[in-house]
Amino acid sequence: MILEIDNTIGSEGLSNIRNAIENAGYSSRVIRGKDEIVLGIRGRPISQSLEEQLRHMPGILNVTRITEAYKEVSRRFHPADTVIELSNGAKIGDGHFALIAGPCSVEDYATTLEAANWAKEAGAAALRGGVFKPRTNPYSFQGLGEKGLEILARVKEETGLPIVTEILEPEDESVSLGGIIKLFEKYDVDIYQIGARSAQNFPLLYSLSKRKHPVLYKNGIGMNAEEFLQGAEYLLSGVWGESHNGGGNPNVILCARGVNTGDISVSRYPLDISLVPELRMKTHLPVIADPSHSTGKWYNVVKASLGLIAAGAQGLEVEVHPNPQQAKSDGKQAIGLEHLMQISKQGRAIFGITNSIPLEAVATAYYK
Amino acid sequence: MILEIDNTIGSEGLSNIRNAIENAGYSSRVIRGKDEIVLGIRGRPISQSLEEQLRHMPGILNVTRITEAYKEVSRRFHPADTVIELSNGAKIGDGHFALIAGPCSVEDYATTLEAANWAKEAGAAALRGGVFKPRTNPYSFQGLGEKGLEILARVKEETGLPIVTEILEPEDESVSLGGIIKLFEKYDVDIYQIGARSAQNFPLLYSLSKRKHPVLYKNGIGMNAEEFLQGAEYLLSGVWGESHNGGGNPNVILCARGVNTGDISVSRYPLDISLVPELRMKTHLPVIADPSHSTGKWYNVVKASLGLIAAGAQGLEVEVHPNPQQAKSDGKQAIGLEHLMQISKQGRAIFGITNSIPLEAVATAYYK
Amino acid sequence: MILEIDNTIGSEGLSNIRNAIENAGYSSRVIRGKDEIVLGIRGRPISQSLEEQLRHMPGILNVTRITEAYKEVSRRFHPADTVIELSNGAKIGDGHFALIAGPCSVEDYATTLEAANWAKEAGAAALRGGVFKPRTNPYSFQGLGEKGLEILARVKEETGLPIVTEILEPEDESVSLGGIIKLFEKYDVDIYQIGARSAQNFPLLYSLSKRKHPVLYKNGIGMNAEEFLQGAEYLLSGVWGESHNGGGNPNVILCARGVNTGDISVSRYPLDISLVPELRMKTHLPVIADPSHSTGKWYNVVKASLGLIAAGAQGLEVEVHPNPQQAKSDGKQAIGLEHLMQISKQGRAIFGITNSIPLEAVATAYYK
Amino acid sequence: MILEIDNTIGSEGLSNIRNAIENAGYSSRVIRGKDEIVLGIRGRPISQSLEEQLRHMPGILNVTRITEAYKEVSRRFHPADTVIELSNGAKIGDGHFALIAGPCSVEDYATTLEAANWAKEAGAAALRGGVFKPRTNPYSFQGLGEKGLEILARVKEETGLPIVTEILEPEDESVSLGGIIKLFEKYDVDIYQIGARSAQNFPLLYSLSKRKHPVLYKNGIGMNAEEFLQGAEYLLSGVWGESHNGGGNPNVILCARGVNTGDISVSRYPLDISLVPELRMKTHLPVIADPSHSTGKWYNVVKASLGLIAAGAQGLEVEVHPNPQQAKSDGKQAIGLEHLMQISKQGRAIFGITNSIPLEAVATAYYK
Repeated sequence: MILEIDNTIGSEGLSNIRNAIENAGYSSRVIRGKDEIVLGIRGRPISQSLEEQLRHMPGILNVTRITEAYKEVSRRFHPADTVIELSNGAKIGDGHFALIAGPCSVEDYATTLEAANWAKEAGAAALRGGVFKPRTNPYSFQGLGEKGLEILARVKEETGLPIVTEILEPEDESVSLGGIIKLFEKYDVDIYQIGARSAQNFPLLYSLSKRKHPVLYKNGIGMNAEEFLQGAEYLLSGVWGESHNGGGNPNVILCARGVNTGDISVSRYPLDISLVPELRMKTHLPVIADPSHSTGKWYNVVKASLGLIAAGAQGLEVEVHPNPQQAKSDGKQAIGLEHLMQISKQGRAIFGITNSIPLEAVATAYYK
Repeated sequence: MILEIDNTIGSEGLSNIRNAIENAGYSSRVIRGKDEIVLGIRGRPISQSLEEQLRHMPGILNVTRITEAYKEVSRRFHPADTVIELSNGAKIGDGHFALIAGPCSVEDYATTLEAANWAKEAGAAALRGGVFKPRTNPYSFQGLGEKGLEILARVKEETGLPIVTEILEPEDESVSLGGIIKLFEKYDVDIYQIGARSAQNFPLLYSLSKRKHPVLYKNGIGMNAEEFLQGAEYLLSGVWGESHNGGGNPNVILCARGVNTGDISVSRYPLDISLVPELRMKTHLPVIADPSHSTGKWYNVVKASLGLIAAGAQGLEVEVHPNPQQAKSDGKQAIGLEHLMQISKQGRAIFGITNSIPLEAVATAYYK
Repeated sequence: MILEIDNTIGSEGLSNIRNAIENAGYSSRVIRGKDEIVLGIRGRPISQSLEEQLRHMPGILNVTRITEAYKEVSRRFHPADTVIELSNGAKIGDGHFALIAGPCSVEDYATTLEAANWAKEAGAAALRGGVFKPRTNPYSFQGLGEKGLEILARVKEETGLPIVTEILEPEDESVSLGGIIKLFEKYDVDIYQIGARSAQNFPLLYSLSKRKHPVLYKNGIGMNAEEFLQGAEYLLSGVWGESHNGGGNPNVILCARGVNTGDISVSRYPLDISLVPELRMKTHLPVIADPSHSTGKWYNVVKASLGLIAAGAQGLEVEVHPNPQQAKSDGKQAIGLEHLMQISKQGRAIFGITNSIPLEAVATAYYK
Repeated sequence: MILEIDNTIGSEGLSNIRNAIENAGYSSRVIRGKDEIVLGIRGRPISQSLEEQLRHMPGILNVTRITEAYKEVSRRFHPADTVIELSNGAKIGDGHFALIAGPCSVEDYATTLEAANWAKEAGAAALRGGVFKPRTNPYSFQGLGEKGLEILARVKEETGLPIVTEILEPEDESVSLGGIIKLFEKYDVDIYQIGARSAQNFPLLYSLSKRKHPVLYKNGIGMNAEEFLQGAEYLLSGVWGESHNGGGNPNVILCARGVNTGDISVSRYPLDISLVPELRMKTHLPVIADPSHSTGKWYNVVKASLGLIAAGAQGLEVEVHPNPQQAKSDGKQAIGLEHLMQISKQGRAIFGITNSIPLEAVATAYYK
């Protein structure tokens, strides 16, 4: 629920309103605009009685129920773009373009370092590399586990690049969910990636909603945009039904990576050209895209990357590999240095053009 | 890998072969046919060197690599239908028809008991009811949790019906995966259901592969049949990459519940008429179907149910509710007693007809 | 628009109503029920002024606008099942089960005759066989054309089986649409099939809406159920925007044949189990199904056929071939005599069971 | 089939080869490269005997069968980009960016002229406007027909913009296919558009393959890329099974417009970001895109347009309307002048960047 409040209300009037909200069991958040104060009420659906009460309180100009199935995630609740800053000073969101590159899986120190050096040359914000891999087939390579984290940490030390890797749940029953997070903390993983297969693993989402640690959240291959945003709402709200963990993680980056429907003769996971602009309009969270898993073919990665940026993506997560043919996973979609540099150079030029088109006007019209 | 072995080999010859397999780090399993002995080699892809060695050992008539991405699950490895017996003597698989009915969510004792009495009247093998619900939206009803398990246990005591409920992971970070299973053990849940959203939650699959406890495994809405069977292979094999938990759970029931693609003006999750016969041919596991989540509309549940049975389903999981309009989840797809009785009566008649058509001849031709 | 009229209105009162409708430029149709007279108003959306006028005329109990995008096709407008009778006395629709079998393409006299004899042995209502084939690739076999019609006519003479074949448009620019229909008339084709690729060829639909000739209308692979029914509305209404050809063809059989979305590792064109019951409820037209093009695999045709019948299909169109491996098109999905006999025998038994479940009760509840 | 021929072969040697090809019933086409002569053999699959003969003829360095299901359309057969020039000098294809804009339907002279003036201001290559509209529902507005053509012709005269409109088949049985083309000729339609619903109307494709008249060919909503290219092969080859009309229309523009699968909560017809680059690599034909029908939402059209250009589209077909809320069809996806100018300005800037990345290197690697 959003309250538009008279700018001249004064601190006491504002306190009265916030107390009424708190007494009803909700929390609120102040967003100061130029001409008015906007107050967002957080959490579960607002009761009729509170709404009635608020409608009659002095200084409240307008009461708007948010009809979307999410609110913390909504641009209506939080109009300004969220920006997330990494340990190396790189920023993700708003007018910042964030390239994340690296191998699909961490395989060994040498190839990881080479990929990281490429990423650095291309001005990447961070290095990606999978160490716990969720694989369709039990007999496939499932990642190096802790050994992979060691390699990532070592490469981070040498290159200064923050690291992004996927968090699954415990790899073993004896290790609780806290256990794998402890590993991630030990090796100082900068961004915890939630992959497509875990996108509706609600216990995992709820768990990561307690911390402020940056999360890169990918859509599930069978999820639509609305379901994706509701998944993100778990992270931002810290709510799970009747439970509220008192937290809510605002540091979430959305990553569009394609779905399992459409023309699979062309793409491994087709990615609709309108998904990125739709997400950008509906949410304030940074929206990046994963051209590698979408195309599934190295030779389409550059053009798909540029297309996604022009459509509004604020960054990309791209798979690179020095020797794609020997890659232990997804070699067919890995690109080399030359293509990565094209993406970086032409991509930044396109980002400069497309990002100059104001989104606000469109969003305002949309919400009317 | 499958070895056809001369019937006259004798126990010593057979031991030699099995020892060779074991020495190479694999285990084997004997399937005695009328005219020959078939030996299946379990586990990870068989090495070239072992294959070579076996091809030259006496008594081995034929060595066949299984090219599917799964083997424990494959009918080639295990030709005869698997049958799973429940605490009330009900059987699932082969020529047994298993009806599982109950409410989407356990809401209170009275409605759960009424639904259970309906299920019993319809000759159901078990009672379903969700207590930990994975919901798209964080603000939705997420199930009664342990209180729901108490209700299920009480209704089971009164009706004698085994209970089926979905297992998520820990609902709280402080509760390890072992924790929720302990709850399930405490309340003696008969069948652990793995729902669509957890279908590629590999840590969960690996965890349940350690026990012999019956599992009802549903396909994810974005998974195809091959991916579904590979997910089941996690359960049956007890393998996770380089790890093997020494187990492998043979008591798995597959449940087809539709996917997120197709004509959603007709069905919530369209369910292809050929999925059930395709699964039946490829695997020996019992295959049941979930008409409720597929149709999403109460008025199509009876006809969809009969269609699925005629196509080869060995059972159904159906949602019923005494007061659908007050249901806390999925009321639109819940049916009443009259429709449940139609499914039971006509469904069993159809099962009698369709099940008389031998599957083996078709499967044999297919695999040639 | 549907008018419920007092049974005691008398012929003059009824005439007054019908004249009012006619004067406003619409035609009407009387459906006598037990307790009341129902009058359906045909054609384009009814004007507000006519609605007002009717609401005030004596004897009209109720005026209901049909909100579906179709009316001639709707079961609300025409509650009783349509039945279509063929030249050999076979009936399609209502409680009649219609098996249509034959080769994908007519290739030569001998194989066509053999297939026809199989069809006859299985009690088929008609023989199918393509002579003008719409093929994805220009270099593929496109059918025998007129020579194929000659063969079909000859086989029909020998077996007495009515013939079904697909009507395209002119195969040559010099032959107008009237031209190909003249060929069909010359060879006395019993049922004109409109295939998936022509399902939204509106000039063709409009053309066939002028005649009362039976049409077998298949859904396009990219059409949903509502679009399919609207396509049929072209046939039944004889309307094309502002034009009305004075006709309207009531002799239309719908054939569900699957769509291009879903799990293509299982089926060539996945066919949702709920499509048939949904169509049966919404329309009075006979609904049959095409398991061959849906499965695309001979070994799933029997089970898919039985499933479709149990779900409510009033018939099947099945592809058979004496030598599938030499078939000029779609050999992989052709079945032999043994499987055809299974479909006929078990299918009729299942039809007897499933058809005994009244559809009306469900439909009535649905429309409330 | 492609023959690489020694540059020093001389005209007599070359004649011998071409005669051999002609004697076998095929035609050939010479493509002179820098270092060698390439000869493409056109038409139906090449016989084994001709292949054998050619492999032994002097001067032939290499014989390559084209394994794609199309050849006239393939970049392998015709490496250089096709360029099509319109009456106003505008070019489509290669390094030329072609904007086509206009209303969905031609409704009246005034709005069509206004839209045309916008198009001109935005530097459009041509004006679009539907006059024969294929509509899902028979009662919907089906276009103004010939009256619409008159309006288009008048607006063309005033603005100088070439006109693009969709060709259906005869609107009436008494009018042969030649009839509607005569109307198009009478009003001098510059580009004949084949819409999604006619994309596999093979008689129409065959008919338009006889002329050299420019055709704008859109993919069907249920077609994949390979099927789309095979449809284009009908146009370019002039082949229909055993028939060959002696023609073959080289002036074909492909237009990607989205498909019926994917996330329809976001897009009316989702358009995969990789479709355009995949088509660009596989074919020499100009590839443009239709953001309007894909997004279905005016507020996503600008970003989708820029994304498609960055991904390699050589133009766009965009729907504009002065009063979208009064539009007789598809008002929700129509944009105004401001957005059109953004597309034109930023789109051309992006085209300059993306078009500088050479496609050839990628294509060469792909085909190896």
